[in-house]
Amino acid sequence: MKKNKKVNAAILIIGNEILSGRTQDTNTSSIAIWLNSIGVKVAEVRVIPDIEKTIIETVNELRKSNDYVFTTGGIGPTHDDITAESISKAFKLDYMIHNEAYKILEAYYKPGEFNEGRQKMIWMPKNAKLILNPTSGAPGFNVENVFCLPGVPSILKSMLGGLKNEIIGGDPILSYTISLRTVESEIAESLTNTQNNNDDVEIGSYPFFQAGKLGVSIVIRSEDQSKIDKCSSQILDFVNVKKIEVVDR
Amino acid sequence: MKKNKKVNAAILIIGNEILSGRTQDTNTSSIAIWLNSIGVKVAEVRVIPDIEKTIIETVNELRKSNDYVFTTGGIGPTHDDITAESISKAFKLDYMIHNEAYKILEAYYKPGEFNEGRQKMIWMPKNAKLILNPTSGAPGFNVENVFCLPGVPSILKSMLGGLKNEIIGGDPILSYTISLRTVESEIAESLTNTQNNNDDVEIGSYPFFQAGKLGVSIVIRSEDQSKIDKCSSQILDFVNVKKIEVVDR
Repeated sequence: MKKNKKVNAAILIIGNEILSGRTQDTNTSSIAIWLNSIGVKVAEVRVIPDIEKTIIETVNELRKSNDYVFTTGGIGPTHDDITAESISKAFKLDYMIHNEAYKILEAYYKPGEFNEGRQKMIWMPKNAKLILNPTSGAPGFNVENVFCLPGVPSILKSMLGGLKNEIIGGDPILSYTISLRTVESEIAESLTNTQNNNDDVEIGSYPFFQAGKLGVSIVIRSEDQSKIDKCSSQILDFVNVKKIEVVDR
Repeated sequence: MKKNKKVNAAILIIGNEILSGRTQDTNTSSIAIWLNSIGVKVAEVRVIPDIEKTIIETVNELRKSNDYVFTTGGIGPTHDDITAESISKAFKLDYMIHNEAYKILEAYYKPGEFNEGRQKMIWMPKNAKLILNPTSGAPGFNVENVFCLPGVPSILKSMLGGLKNEIIGGDPILSYTISLRTVESEIAESLTNTQNNNDDVEIGSYPFFQAGKLGVSIVIRSEDQSKIDKCSSQILDFVNVKKIEVVDR
């Protein structure tokens, strides 16, 4: 059975450390690759500061215009971790102790270790659904179509697998890459023609520099493998005529 | 003379390759660090696809709510490079051949190399101011408070220096980092008190994992060095009382 439904998501990175340039975000890429594999296309990404009003307004905007929203950051134990309280306000839900989260963390920590700082991590929007954390105990949470994940990349990655059954994707977005030993300007015109002949396929052109040599990767993306195949054969045709070396495909 | 003015910028990353997760954005961090050094704070970052309507609407929103907007990507020679045309439409300016850009590229390329693909790169919004490219010839451009840069990180970086005199920053944003051998929950309460006592300073808490050991970096940010000093001495006081090892400061 063909689903053929487009499903979109937004990623919302919450954290001053990304905006200051101190920390390089890698979560966007991890989440996007995982979402693609289950048929969800990332429509936009936003990075915003740890400011309650900004978080509330942005979440409320994004959750209306996207099928899913994934937030990262701001769910730890310190004063600058304000995601859970902000999401509660965005949904007009009480911000309160989550009993299931309490039990998980009480069992996770040794006696005496479950201190005041850590107890902050059991406060969540009322009736939030937990996202389990196999790495470091403290769970993320989900309210309606908004999924809140931590900012630490290794912990975030370990939590994505558990979300699979919560997300209903469309057809997986397939891609095929042809890497050429050329420069973009040599193929620009032919590539424009190919795109015009294949208007329901997305063709991207990305220059690269590897082992001292310039090249261009052409990435073809579609939910339909036969459309990718048709498009790639047209590209290989003009590559062949122009006698351009194919580095990888 | 004290400027003491807050100057904000937005960064707009244009490119399907970032949204698909194929390419890891590093331009945000490069631009943000450079902007901080000249007294401009990044208020938000957005990543959007190569779709004309989305580019126009997002640029028009961001240029009203920020002192400066920096875009990256979409100014090369291929069909998916639509930034210059979209910016023209956003500002309701003609999209036309830029004579100065034409002269630069005609001089840059060898005879016969300035082909149709490359000639796309001289089409810009009418009267745009060029941003010179010391790496690969093709310039970026600037219309009012919007600065359009390429997506290739090494080329982008080489162009930032030339922009310095175009941007009027406020006081530089200073930061001081104290790295501790502890976990966030051990210091969360004390750090909250410190933040409450220093409400015009931004204190961030970031866990790290280095050489097999957990730690926390506390980052203090302000335009005023004396406020940073006051805040950091309060942090070192409670760190001392708690007998926490200072790894780096």
